[in-house]
Amino acid sequence: MRMYDVIAKKRDGGTLSREELAFAVNGFVSGQVPDYQMSALLMAIYLKGMTGEETAQLTDLMAHSGKMADLSSIQGVKVDKHSTGGVGDKTTLVVAPVAAACGVKVAKMSGRGLGHTGGTVDKMEAVPGTRIALSEQEFFDQVNRLGIAVVGQSSEMAPADRKMYALRDVTATVESIPLIASSIMSKKLASGSDCILLDVTVGTGAFMKTVPRAVELARLMVEIGCRNGRKVAALITDMDTPLGSCIGNSLEVAESMEVLKGCGPEDLTQVCCQLATNMLMLAGKGGEAECLAMVKRVLADGSAFRLCKEMFHAQSGDVRVLDDPRCFAPAQYQYDVCSPSDGFICKTDAEKIGIASMLLGAGRLKKEDSIDYAAGIRMYKKQGAAVRRGERLATFYTNDPARFAAAEETFLQGFSFGDEKPEQLKLIYARVTQSGVEYF
Amino acid sequence: MRMYDVIAKKRDGGTLSREELAFAVNGFVSGQVPDYQMSALLMAIYLKGMTGEETAQLTDLMAHSGKMADLSSIQGVKVDKHSTGGVGDKTTLVVAPVAAACGVKVAKMSGRGLGHTGGTVDKMEAVPGTRIALSEQEFFDQVNRLGIAVVGQSSEMAPADRKMYALRDVTATVESIPLIASSIMSKKLASGSDCILLDVTVGTGAFMKTVPRAVELARLMVEIGCRNGRKVAALITDMDTPLGSCIGNSLEVAESMEVLKGCGPEDLTQVCCQLATNMLMLAGKGGEAECLAMVKRVLADGSAFRLCKEMFHAQSGDVRVLDDPRCFAPAQYQYDVCSPSDGFICKTDAEKIGIASMLLGAGRLKKEDSIDYAAGIRMYKKQGAAVRRGERLATFYTNDPARFAAAEETFLQGFSFGDEKPEQLKLIYARVTQSGVEYF
Repeated sequence: MRMYDVIAKKRDGGTLSREELAFAVNGFVSGQVPDYQMSALLMAIYLKGMTGEETAQLTDLMAHSGKMADLSSIQGVKVDKHSTGGVGDKTTLVVAPVAAACGVKVAKMSGRGLGHTGGTVDKMEAVPGTRIALSEQEFFDQVNRLGIAVVGQSSEMAPADRKMYALRDVTATVESIPLIASSIMSKKLASGSDCILLDVTVGTGAFMKTVPRAVELARLMVEIGCRNGRKVAALITDMDTPLGSCIGNSLEVAESMEVLKGCGPEDLTQVCCQLATNMLMLAGKGGEAECLAMVKRVLADGSAFRLCKEMFHAQSGDVRVLDDPRCFAPAQYQYDVCSPSDGFICKTDAEKIGIASMLLGAGRLKKEDSIDYAAGIRMYKKQGAAVRRGERLATFYTNDPARFAAAEETFLQGFSFGDEKPEQLKLIYARVTQSGVEYF
Repeated sequence: MRMYDVIAKKRDGGTLSREELAFAVNGFVSGQVPDYQMSALLMAIYLKGMTGEETAQLTDLMAHSGKMADLSSIQGVKVDKHSTGGVGDKTTLVVAPVAAACGVKVAKMSGRGLGHTGGTVDKMEAVPGTRIALSEQEFFDQVNRLGIAVVGQSSEMAPADRKMYALRDVTATVESIPLIASSIMSKKLASGSDCILLDVTVGTGAFMKTVPRAVELARLMVEIGCRNGRKVAALITDMDTPLGSCIGNSLEVAESMEVLKGCGPEDLTQVCCQLATNMLMLAGKGGEAECLAMVKRVLADGSAFRLCKEMFHAQSGDVRVLDDPRCFAPAQYQYDVCSPSDGFICKTDAEKIGIASMLLGAGRLKKEDSIDYAAGIRMYKKQGAAVRRGERLATFYTNDPARFAAAEETFLQGFSFGDEKPEQLKLIYARVTQSGVEYF
């Protein structure tokens, strides 16, 4: 077999066989297929697409390019959850303990963040002392004992994805639904859970900008998972406006704990309840009403919050900050951003607000950048609220006051004002399962 | 500017500006744009195409990536001729002296061959002693004195084309009309002639397999030339069957001399006359009838043949072989291939016959391969001829008799026989000029 022929076949719109995909993926990982051939194939895939079966094969090959987690020593149904990312997206810190408190096993591997804020493991590290690198045995033992562990993704997993993503990133081949789906799902397959709930975000602050694109991605990921023997479903959730009120690592940990304590912002609480409910449904815990009732119960009786603290404690985190966010090291500087107008807020653009948060130090522009855990934004007013000129919209936090000006400018670009109260955005647009799409 | 954005624009079907093309081409030549980004752009161009103006800009940038020949010290109109290649295609050795004998200047740079037989400079080197590397001054002086010189293409010319072609060759992006056109024309622009006649071959033994594709390529090359200030026209000529009777380097030199002496095969003679006529028309020597008459005159009075000998003599070639082909070093082995059937020959497939000739040693499979100048095929029967089983179809020549068996098998695969005389193929399908396409 020659890579030339594999490229030519896809270039001409053909469907690649498992053998052809394996030749390309394994050759690329081993170095026998050079970058320039892989980038030509990736562009051909971008422009000619892939069938569902072809994408499922590619994903399986990418997953098997590295270590496959074997979770068989963990008893019970293992449920994973993955979000395609967004601004203020701290749902994992809520739904993982909630689901575990309801009796499913959450053996989760999470990534670091690039962009607006950190990823889940960055947020966990905002809790002083937390270890996100456990040995395999520690990881299994903790999940068997507590029902939950969240650790960093091993670099031994899905090396094909890492190498392909690095190439896509510089060859304008990122925004391809089959390539995005295979990238995400290869890591999920390698992580070993039986059930996977996907949170596919849509809007200015998300990778998918429209609901149809988000649904297309979700359908393909569900198909990939099912073709590879996993139970997968997806919720399509809004990311036109940030989720919750806080953006930034310590701030988001504190806000997640508010949800677990039953006093979090309404939008975040509602999305978390739906995500957790769907995780339980996937795991066969019952129908929707039943699962939602279980979720509400473990929130109301404090058992989800207690389990979250137990997890952090098991991973050496200082749980005092979970009880009382005032125990977090505070940002040295804070600054109030005020409304430049009277009227209703028509838009709180998640992307602009996310960038503002990154400019304050909460996120990374480059992989090597370090994160200021205390940096971020607390919003008091979001889309739909009425404000007066000069009224406080948000407080900025940072350890580097030189960052305020640029952050404020970008933040305010994310706002627009009008005389009429705008329509309320939906929080969840649709649910995608193997049997189809259900719009809300 | 970022290469990422240039790739993304073409990926989305946009038209690249001169600045964007310059960024890509010059960056690639200097090494600042890596292979993997260029191959992604090439695949995007392959699949999304380029406008005529865009292709003309790209071609000009590729030409200017290296040395541009300055032919201003040669007096008169300089006319170049380029063939997209084929089997038995030895027209340059005929038409260059014919055109020069009619009073235009032929300052030609030619390439080596890859495939069936050598290119023009390989064929010239079949004449013992011939130098194809002249100094610039020698080259100019010879053209001023004799009106003709044919030399090898300098490696300093159009390095962007060389580097891009090498990448296209391994990334399945060769067969793109804009990329083929810009590759050919960048070298023609760099070679410096005022007028360029293109011989675009079509058929099994050519790069273009159908007349519409050949016309499309020709139109684009004519447009590129005109947009860059050159006079360009193209003939679309047949390459379903080999041109003339001989394939192989010394054999083709001998056959070209037969045409110059007025006793060459009819098909080759006719194509050469048309090519030379169109070169003269481009150079403003008169109308078609007038130019054809000039061509016939220099063939009939022997002045074209004498000029050809003077050129070889000036370039140190042993012209005795031109007067008498028996002076060529003969092939040590020869072998007669006989007809397996009675009937009419329906097809003499140029590609199969070309490969057979390469298998005998007349061409190169890889750039590094050496050529056996004496190797090749002399055909006695071509498409349309009536044959009896056992009648001689051709003689094979080689210095390595181990090559006969595979060559014969491939050669005979190129033949098919039938009971009825097949329709005569056209030699020339169309002429493409700035004013349009004229079908014959």
